[in-house]
Amino acid sequence: MESTSFIRFLFLILAAVVLLLFTRSWIHLPSPAADELDLLDCNRFSSWCTSKNRIQTKQTTPSSSSSTTRSASSSSAAVRDHSDDVPRHPLDPLTLREISAARSILLSQPPFSSSPSSVIFHTLTLSEPDKSSVEAWSKGSPLPARRASVVARFKGESYALTVDLASGALTTLPIPASGFPTMTIEDMSSSTWAPLSDAAFNSTVLARGVRLSDVACLPISPGWYGEKEEGRRLIKVQCYSAEGTANFYMRPIEGLTVLLDMDTKEVVSISEQGRGIPIPKSAGTEYRYEAVAGFNDDPPRLGLKPISIEQPAGPSFEVEEGGHMVRWAGWEFHLKADARAGVVVSRVRARDPDTGEWRGVMHKGFVSELFVPYMDPTDAWYFKTYMDAGEYGFGLQAMPLVPLNDCPRNAHYMDGVFAAADGRPYVRENMVCIFERYAGDIAWRHSESPITGMDIREARPKVTLMARMAASVANYDYIIDWEFQTDGLIRVKVGLSGILMVKGTPFSHLNQFPQNEDMYGTILSENVIGVIHDHYITFHLDLDVDGANNSFVKVKMAREDANPGESPRTSYIKATRQVAKTEKDAQIKMKLYEPSEFHVINPSKTTRVGNPVGYKVVPAATAASLLDHDDPPQRRGAFTNNQIWVTPYNESEEWAGGLFVYQSKGEDTLAVWSERDRAIENRDIVLWYTLGFHHIPCQEDYPIMPTVSASFDLKPVNFFESNPILSAPPNFEKDLPVCVAAAASA
Amino acid sequence: MESTSFIRFLFLILAAVVLLLFTRSWIHLPSPAADELDLLDCNRFSSWCTSKNRIQTKQTTPSSSSSTTRSASSSSAAVRDHSDDVPRHPLDPLTLREISAARSILLSQPPFSSSPSSVIFHTLTLSEPDKSSVEAWSKGSPLPARRASVVARFKGESYALTVDLASGALTTLPIPASGFPTMTIEDMSSSTWAPLSDAAFNSTVLARGVRLSDVACLPISPGWYGEKEEGRRLIKVQCYSAEGTANFYMRPIEGLTVLLDMDTKEVVSISEQGRGIPIPKSAGTEYRYEAVAGFNDDPPRLGLKPISIEQPAGPSFEVEEGGHMVRWAGWEFHLKADARAGVVVSRVRARDPDTGEWRGVMHKGFVSELFVPYMDPTDAWYFKTYMDAGEYGFGLQAMPLVPLNDCPRNAHYMDGVFAAADGRPYVRENMVCIFERYAGDIAWRHSESPITGMDIREARPKVTLMARMAASVANYDYIIDWEFQTDGLIRVKVGLSGILMVKGTPFSHLNQFPQNEDMYGTILSENVIGVIHDHYITFHLDLDVDGANNSFVKVKMAREDANPGESPRTSYIKATRQVAKTEKDAQIKMKLYEPSEFHVINPSKTTRVGNPVGYKVVPAATAASLLDHDDPPQRRGAFTNNQIWVTPYNESEEWAGGLFVYQSKGEDTLAVWSERDRAIENRDIVLWYTLGFHHIPCQEDYPIMPTVSASFDLKPVNFFESNPILSAPPNFEKDLPVCVAAAASA
Repeated sequence: MESTSFIRFLFLILAAVVLLLFTRSWIHLPSPAADELDLLDCNRFSSWCTSKNRIQTKQTTPSSSSSTTRSASSSSAAVRDHSDDVPRHPLDPLTLREISAARSILLSQPPFSSSPSSVIFHTLTLSEPDKSSVEAWSKGSPLPARRASVVARFKGESYALTVDLASGALTTLPIPASGFPTMTIEDMSSSTWAPLSDAAFNSTVLARGVRLSDVACLPISPGWYGEKEEGRRLIKVQCYSAEGTANFYMRPIEGLTVLLDMDTKEVVSISEQGRGIPIPKSAGTEYRYEAVAGFNDDPPRLGLKPISIEQPAGPSFEVEEGGHMVRWAGWEFHLKADARAGVVVSRVRARDPDTGEWRGVMHKGFVSELFVPYMDPTDAWYFKTYMDAGEYGFGLQAMPLVPLNDCPRNAHYMDGVFAAADGRPYVRENMVCIFERYAGDIAWRHSESPITGMDIREARPKVTLMARMAASVANYDYIIDWEFQTDGLIRVKVGLSGILMVKGTPFSHLNQFPQNEDMYGTILSENVIGVIHDHYITFHLDLDVDGANNSFVKVKMAREDANPGESPRTSYIKATRQVAKTEKDAQIKMKLYEPSEFHVINPSKTTRVGNPVGYKVVPAATAASLLDHDDPPQRRGAFTNNQIWVTPYNESEEWAGGLFVYQSKGEDTLAVWSERDRAIENRDIVLWYTLGFHHIPCQEDYPIMPTVSASFDLKPVNFFESNPILSAPPNFEKDLPVCVAAAASA
Repeated sequence: MESTSFIRFLFLILAAVVLLLFTRSWIHLPSPAADELDLLDCNRFSSWCTSKNRIQTKQTTPSSSSSTTRSASSSSAAVRDHSDDVPRHPLDPLTLREISAARSILLSQPPFSSSPSSVIFHTLTLSEPDKSSVEAWSKGSPLPARRASVVARFKGESYALTVDLASGALTTLPIPASGFPTMTIEDMSSSTWAPLSDAAFNSTVLARGVRLSDVACLPISPGWYGEKEEGRRLIKVQCYSAEGTANFYMRPIEGLTVLLDMDTKEVVSISEQGRGIPIPKSAGTEYRYEAVAGFNDDPPRLGLKPISIEQPAGPSFEVEEGGHMVRWAGWEFHLKADARAGVVVSRVRARDPDTGEWRGVMHKGFVSELFVPYMDPTDAWYFKTYMDAGEYGFGLQAMPLVPLNDCPRNAHYMDGVFAAADGRPYVRENMVCIFERYAGDIAWRHSESPITGMDIREARPKVTLMARMAASVANYDYIIDWEFQTDGLIRVKVGLSGILMVKGTPFSHLNQFPQNEDMYGTILSENVIGVIHDHYITFHLDLDVDGANNSFVKVKMAREDANPGESPRTSYIKATRQVAKTEKDAQIKMKLYEPSEFHVINPSKTTRVGNPVGYKVVPAATAASLLDHDDPPQRRGAFTNNQIWVTPYNESEEWAGGLFVYQSKGEDTLAVWSERDRAIENRDIVLWYTLGFHHIPCQEDYPIMPTVSASFDLKPVNFFESNPILSAPPNFEKDLPVCVAAAASA
C-alpha cells in the first residue's frame, strides 16, 4: 500500500470511528450484559447439545475454518445472558429456568421418577395458552398459566404430556397410532458413529479404499415402507470419505447403507450394493473460502469492493424488553425460535393508518413440515423422502447466523432456548436475525410524462423488515425469511442453499452411461450424479383478519363471452366469488389457465364502500408433487397433494405431517384431517400453503449449490381503505443518512 | 434539538465529510464535464420533446411539486454533455450528430425534399449492423458502417427506410400490410388538448360540472375492431377532472370518449354514455408526499430512519468510455436506452472462471412488446387493450430516474439520446441506472450441524449488478430490471407501479350495485371502480450460448412407475429431454402438473463430463391470457397465446406485435411467424418469454398502486464446469467497508 493510500486509510478509519461513536448511543436495541457468559456454555446445561462426532472432528476441521468462526463471532454483538430471563408475553418461549423446572417436575413423578436417567426429552417447549386467553391478555396483566409441552421416550414408549409449571400437575395426552417423535441431536450424532463399532461395516469401508478415520456418516430417516422391523425405531446411515475436503458430501461411499436400531444402536443389517463404484475425487470439492485456491489474490477474485447497508441513526424497529415483541412501521408481531418449526411469527397486527387502531392479521405462522422426496427407486436411495421438521427438528438444525454474511451489519439477533435430550436447557445463539432491508427497490413510483405536461416525479423507496433463520439439515441449508412491507404485505421466502446430496457412479462421462438405463439425475463430475428431487415447504398460516372468525373465498377468473352485438370485443375475464363452506371446497390445485385469487376475509366487517376486509395468499405456483398418491412417501407427505388447504382451527392440528412423523404411516396428516370436510365458513380457520421446487441438478450445483428461492405473499385485500404506503416517506434529503447529505453538498 | 445532540450532529457531519472526501477519488466512473449544459435543453433540439399541455400545466402543478423536482436534481450527478459523443462500439446508439446527419440526409432527398417540414419522424434509431459483423468487430477496429433506421410519415403515407450515414444512401424498405408507426410524443400530447377545440365536447364537459381549465385528457390507442374509419390514423381521448388533486386519474369523466383523427386532429365522433355518473371526489386522492396531510410530522409517519447502501471504496463495475460497455464480476455487456424497447442489453458475455475465456450468453435481450387488455366490453372500455411498446414507445415514456428514490445512492446513470417528431435529437437524462445491489441476501451458505461435529459456517452474501429503467405510460409505471449475479444467473424483473386506470360509477357502496349486473371490477372508493385487467410483457431473448447455433430442449418431468418388486417405492419423477426440431415444438403453455425445464443449449459443445452447455429460462408462471383467440385484441396480442416461443433468428422479427402495431390487425405477430414452423434445431434461435399478471384491483390500489413485481431467470445449466460463486468473496472483515471494521473494533 503506497503511503498516500495509507494516510487515506487512516483518515477513513478515524472518520468511521467518529461516526460510529456518535451513532452508537442512538441505537435503542437491548444492550445485553456480557457477564455470566458461562450460561451460554452448552456443556454446562447439557452433554448432548453440541455432542461431537469424535471421528470427523479430529480429521476434517482444519485450522483455517476456526479462523472463519472466530472472525464471525468477533464482529457479532456480545453474547446474551439468559439466566435471568422471565416471560413477559403469553407466547414467550420457556426460559432457561422454566425448562429446568419442567424437567424437574416431570422426572419427580411416576412413571419417570422410577428411573429419571432413562427419560429422553424429544420436545420440551411452551404449551401455548389457548387463543382466547392470549387475545384477552394485555400488557401489565399476569400471564396465563405457564405450561410445558413435553414429548418424551421412556423405556421404549413414547409419551406426550403437559406440565403445569405453577401447580406441578402432569397431564398425559393421547399419542398418534404410528410414528416416533422428532429425533434428538444425540439420536442423530450417536447414530453416525455407531456403524464404526461393527466389524463387517469397517471391513466393507476398508475394502472400498477408505480409511476409517476419514469416514463421515449421515443419519437418514428411513421413512416407512411396511418393513418387517417397523415396530422398532430405525435409522439408516450412509457414509462418505472426508479425506482431503470438508465437502465430504461429494465423496459418497455409494450403495453402502447401514440399518440401525436407534434405541440400541445395534446394526440390524448392512446393504452393500456399490462395490464397483469408486469414491469420487476430492479435487475441486472444497468450499471454504480460505481453502479455495487463489484466496490471497489481490484484488479479490471477481473484484468486488465492499458494500454495506448503513443506518446512521440506528434501526427503526424496536424489540420490546423480553426480546420477542417486534414493532416497526405500522407492524407489531411476536417472534420466537422453535425447535421444530425453526421460527414462529405470532400475533401479527397492523396499525390502521386512518384510525390508528391495531388490527389483527395473523395469529400464528410457521413452517409446519417439509417433504423432500428423491427420485431414485433403487436400494440406497428409495427411502430418501425426508420430512425435515418432524424428523430432524427444523429449529434444532438452525446454527448461529454469521453476522455480515448471513445477515447484514444492521441486524439484531435473537437466540433460541431449547431443551436437550436430557431435558436440560441450552442456548442456540444468534438463531434468528431481524433487520431492515433496503435494496434500492421501489415500493411505489409515478412520473407524469410530457403528455400531460405535469412535472411530477414521485417515488417511495422500498424499505422492509426481515426476520430470518437458516436451518442446516445435513447437506441442505434452508433460509426462511419473513418480510414485512410498509404497504401491509407480508412476503414469506424460502431459500434453498448448501450442498447437494449426490450419488456415486462408476461412470466418468455421459457417453459411458448405458442408453436405456435411467440415470435418475445429471452427471455433475467424474463418478458423481446429482439425483432429481423435490422440496415442499408447508406453512401453517392461522390468519385471523380483524378477529378469529373468517371465511375462505376463491375469486375465480374465467373467460366470459360478450353478448353478441353488445361489444366489438367477444371476450373478457370475469371474476366470481365462491365462499368455501367446508374443507373440501378449499382443497386447491393451481392451474395457470384456471386462475383464482385466494382470500381470507372477515365476513362481519366491511370497508366504507362495502368490501369485506381480508388478506389474500398470493402463491408462487412453483411445483406440485407428481408422485402416486398411494406411494408410501406420498401417503406420508399427502399434505402436498394440494397447494392450498383450509381447516377449522384445532390446537392439535399444527404439524401437517402429524405429531409423530418419524416412520409414521400417514394417518395423521393434513390430508386426513381435511377429508373430514368440516365446516369452515365464518369460523376460526387455518390456511395451509405449500411452496414446491423440482430440482434437476446441473453442474452449477457442484460442488456447492447456490441459493434458489421462492416466495409467497400475504397481501391485504380491501383490508385498508386505501394504500398505507402514502404515508411512507420518500428517501429525499430530509430523511437521508447524514453522509449522503454531505455528499450532495460537497 | 438539545445542545449535546447538536454537537453530536456536527461531529457526524464532519466525520461524514472526511469519509466522503477520501472516498470520492476512488470512484472511477466517467466524470462528465458540466459545461455546455444548453445541449441538454430539449427545446434547442426540438419543439416537441417536452411539449406541454397548456391547460394542465397551469392548473395542476402546484409549487410544492417543483421543490420535489429540485431536490431530486440537486442530489443527482452533474448533467452530461453529449455534444462530442462519438460511437465506440458497433451497437452504440446514434449520437446527437448522427441523428442530425440522418435527418439532413433524409430531408434532402425525394420525395421528402419536396416538403421537408411535412416529414414526421416516428423512429430514428441505429440500424444495427448484422450479427456477424458485430461478432467479428474488436476494440480498436473501425466500426461497421453506421446506418440509421427511420420510420416516417409523409403526406399521409408511412415509410420505413435505412439511411447510410457515410454514403448518404437512402434505402426504402417494405412496410407491413396494416397498422401505423409508434406515436410520437407530439401525437399524444396534441391529441389530449384537441377535443377542447370542439364546442360539443366542451359543452358536455361543462354539463358534467367540470371546468374546462380542470380538464386533463389521455390519448388512448383504439386498437382495431374493423371500424368503418379504419383507414385513418385514429385515437380515442378520455378526460378527467384535475381539480383539487394531481391524481386526476381517480376523477374520470366516465363514459365520455372522443374519437379523433390523429393526423388532422379532427373530432370524428363523441360518445357520451356517462351522464348520470358523478365525477369521483378529489379528497384522499393526492399522492405527492408534500401534499399529503401530516407531511410535517416529526418524526416522519411510520418512523422510518434513514438507510442507505454504501460503497466506501466506490462501485466495482466499470462503464467503458463511450458509456455503453459495462463490466462487473465476470460479466460484460452492452447497455443502451431505446425509444421503443426502453432498454436493450446486448453482447452479454460471462467469463469462465476456469479458463478466463469470455463466453457468449445472449446477443440481445429487451422488452419486445406489452399487452394490457382491460376486462370490460362496454363502450368506453372495450378498446383499452394497450400495446405500450409499439403504440406509445416504451422508451419514449421513460422519464428521468430520480436519484435516491428510483435508484440508490451508489447508482450510475445513463442518458437516452432520441429523435423527436421533427427528427432533431434530444437527450433524455438519467433514463437508465446501473448499481450494485446488496440487500442482505445470501448467495450461498452452508453450516455444518453438530451431527457431523465440523465447525463450519460458510456464506457468500449476495451482491448483484442492476440495470434499471422505468417507463410511465400515462397512469402505469413499469420498472424493468436486468440483474446479474455472480453465479452466472441473469434475473429479469418487471415491476408494475403507478396509478390505476379507474372507471366512474353512479354507486358509492357495494350494496347499491344491481345483483345481476357485472361490475367488471371492484369498488375502490365512492363512485370509483378498479377494472380487472391483465399485463403481459413479452421479452425477445436472443440467446447465443457459446456461439450462434443453439437448440431448444424441453426437459420434461413426469411420473414414472417403479417396476413392481424392484423397489418399496411405486413412483418417482423421471426427466426426459426433447430437442425441438421446428417452431411448433417450442410453443409452450405451462402446466403445474406437467412441469418442464426449458434449455437453450449449444449442441456442439459439452462439458468435461459430457453435458451440453446451456442456459435455461426459469419462468414465473404468473398468468396466461384467457381471451378468445379470435377476439380482435387477442389476435393482435397473439404473441401471448403461449408463454414461450422459439423462432429462428430473423433480423426483421424483433417486435412481437409487429413493426406497425398501432391499429394493426395482427398479421405481423410472433404467433403468425411461428406458424410457419421453421426449423430451429442447431440454428441461431431467439427465445420469447412472456411474463403475465392478472390484476383484480382492491382498495389497496387506491389512490395509488404499490409496486407488484414478477421475474424470470436466465440460468446457466451445465454452462460452467462448477459453480463460479466459489470465487466470490464472503463479506468478512477483509473485504468490509472500513466503517464496519471500525465498528467491530470499537
